[in-house]
Amino acid sequence: MVEQVTVAVDANGADLGPAEVARGAALAAERGIRVVLFGPAAELGDAGVEVVDAPVSIAKAPDPARAVRSTPEASIVQAVEAVASGRADALVSGGSTGAALAASLFRFKRARGIHRPALAIVVPVPGAPFLLLDAGANVAVRPEHLVQFAHMGAAFMEVVMGVERPRVALLSTGEEPSKGPEDVVAAHEALIESPGAIDFVGNVEGFAIGKGVADVLVADGFTGNVALKVMEGTSDVLLRSVRAAAMSSTRSKLGGLLLRPALRGLRDQIDPEAHGGAVLLGLRQLGVVPHGSFGARGFASAIEVAARGVREDVLGRTHERLAAAGALRRAEASAAAGTVTDQS
Amino acid sequence: MVEQVTVAVDANGADLGPAEVARGAALAAERGIRVVLFGPAAELGDAGVEVVDAPVSIAKAPDPARAVRSTPEASIVQAVEAVASGRADALVSGGSTGAALAASLFRFKRARGIHRPALAIVVPVPGAPFLLLDAGANVAVRPEHLVQFAHMGAAFMEVVMGVERPRVALLSTGEEPSKGPEDVVAAHEALIESPGAIDFVGNVEGFAIGKGVADVLVADGFTGNVALKVMEGTSDVLLRSVRAAAMSSTRSKLGGLLLRPALRGLRDQIDPEAHGGAVLLGLRQLGVVPHGSFGARGFASAIEVAARGVREDVLGRTHERLAAAGALRRAEASAAAGTVTDQS
Repeated sequence: MVEQVTVAVDANGADLGPAEVARGAALAAERGIRVVLFGPAAELGDAGVEVVDAPVSIAKAPDPARAVRSTPEASIVQAVEAVASGRADALVSGGSTGAALAASLFRFKRARGIHRPALAIVVPVPGAPFLLLDAGANVAVRPEHLVQFAHMGAAFMEVVMGVERPRVALLSTGEEPSKGPEDVVAAHEALIESPGAIDFVGNVEGFAIGKGVADVLVADGFTGNVALKVMEGTSDVLLRSVRAAAMSSTRSKLGGLLLRPALRGLRDQIDPEAHGGAVLLGLRQLGVVPHGSFGARGFASAIEVAARGVREDVLGRTHERLAAAGALRRAEASAAAGTVTDQS
Repeated sequence: MVEQVTVAVDANGADLGPAEVARGAALAAERGIRVVLFGPAAELGDAGVEVVDAPVSIAKAPDPARAVRSTPEASIVQAVEAVASGRADALVSGGSTGAALAASLFRFKRARGIHRPALAIVVPVPGAPFLLLDAGANVAVRPEHLVQFAHMGAAFMEVVMGVERPRVALLSTGEEPSKGPEDVVAAHEALIESPGAIDFVGNVEGFAIGKGVADVLVADGFTGNVALKVMEGTSDVLLRSVRAAAMSSTRSKLGGLLLRPALRGLRDQIDPEAHGGAVLLGLRQLGVVPHGSFGARGFASAIEVAARGVREDVLGRTHERLAAAGALRRAEASAAAGTVTDQS
């Protein structure tokens, strides 16, 4: 029997409006997930899911952390609260990463033994999608944080995305272990030293994108966020240029028309909505943050990812991995060791 | 009368071999640049330029810095030596960035008032090319280094690439001045405080690539190198995927054929050979490092960029900018101030 999972969804913040989020919730509900929608009831239509009327939005607040503290009635704060209190099992935000992060970090506790939460996102590269983390939760990190991100990412790809024995790499400026800033070099050493616990394939460079050499790419939140946005910017300008080239003459217009079905397949492969958006890992509850531009299908994917994460116990599996690799925070590691002793 | 510029070119290290570099040298010589070629004379053919027989290559040395010190007869070391001693005015390497950087940093002195040299590269984005620096000379930097990179990049774009009043931006994770690591935030503040000296447009994110919002993009060498390679990786996987889509059926093959002339125009726009490769700025001599994969045309561009940099005195213009902005290293700044007082 599959356990019933409840996902709290903030309907505010999406570019296409709360009704679009509600349509996504309806799609997810059809697939057997219980959804509680927090948003302006009057605008949500009849999504066939439970609605909590929460019309106040802080999705556009200039200082999300402050807005979270001062606006308990905001839809994102109520949705987070529902998860923190156990009324729901996981969170899906309406598209404002800032508000969702601030509210989650404020109310969800760090998971046992975790130094820092990280934002992880499946990057939809044709034929070789991979998980990038940290995509922006932390500006600066220490080597032990990068090591934990490696295990958190591996657990997510295995448990939620169904990748068997995910290959993990560090994003750096050369494949040699000595390449990159001190923290990356130190993380590399630490990951090499825990064989068995993780399939660490070493450093990779940005060239490796699309080559399928790793399932998880680990970086500090600044580098990861820059890399993610550079990929989006590059991909956007290139596809726009190909489109413009295809519109530049009658001959090329005809060519573009003939190519269209084949390119549609490519577009589906790089569709970010398919994977549901960014996932906040390392807290006691799971949060998924779809991109603000997503449509109903993207929100439905986000809700499914959240539900799968709960059902497959991604948090528990992450903890097991970290314990096995000796990569838990020290206090927590001693406690875990104590438990093992008691049981033996 | 145009001053005669001499460029020392290392012919070793290119993927296509020394003869290809020699062909590039011949092209540049036809355009009135004096070239001295350092490489295996037997393999260079008759390029119509001066050749110094230097068959020893350290382009593939695992530790370039050590190889530079222990191999004075290596072609790159001899080419650098020719520039350092004044027999030539600028350096073009044969394609091994590691050896070229190591030799230049070893023998060229830092330019007056410069903290750190930086590797700058024109990123060929369709319709919106920009200079990215530091693309990998420094792993870690301080805010004052980033500030100098901004001025060095602006001077290069103005003097060598002919961009009037180049707009300079910091690569970060958000447009707000508070976004990014401490060093980026501090550099932002410092750049805001020197209005007039530089057209600083603030922080930009990776999304901005291709949008034409800045002519110079400043980052630390780790972030810049990662960003550059991520652009290359993303661009490569997308263009390969478009090509694969165009080969997937008879219909799409025909479409691809019709589109080909229009896409050729795009390919020319994103051709990295057109801009000659990476430029090492901040030393007393100029070095240009083409990509190892370049053909004759790319090496000719590199030699032209080096010659233009010397002719237009990019180093002197950089110094003027830094002095005007009060961004020279302190000891040097006092000396400069003294000079001004003496002259007034």
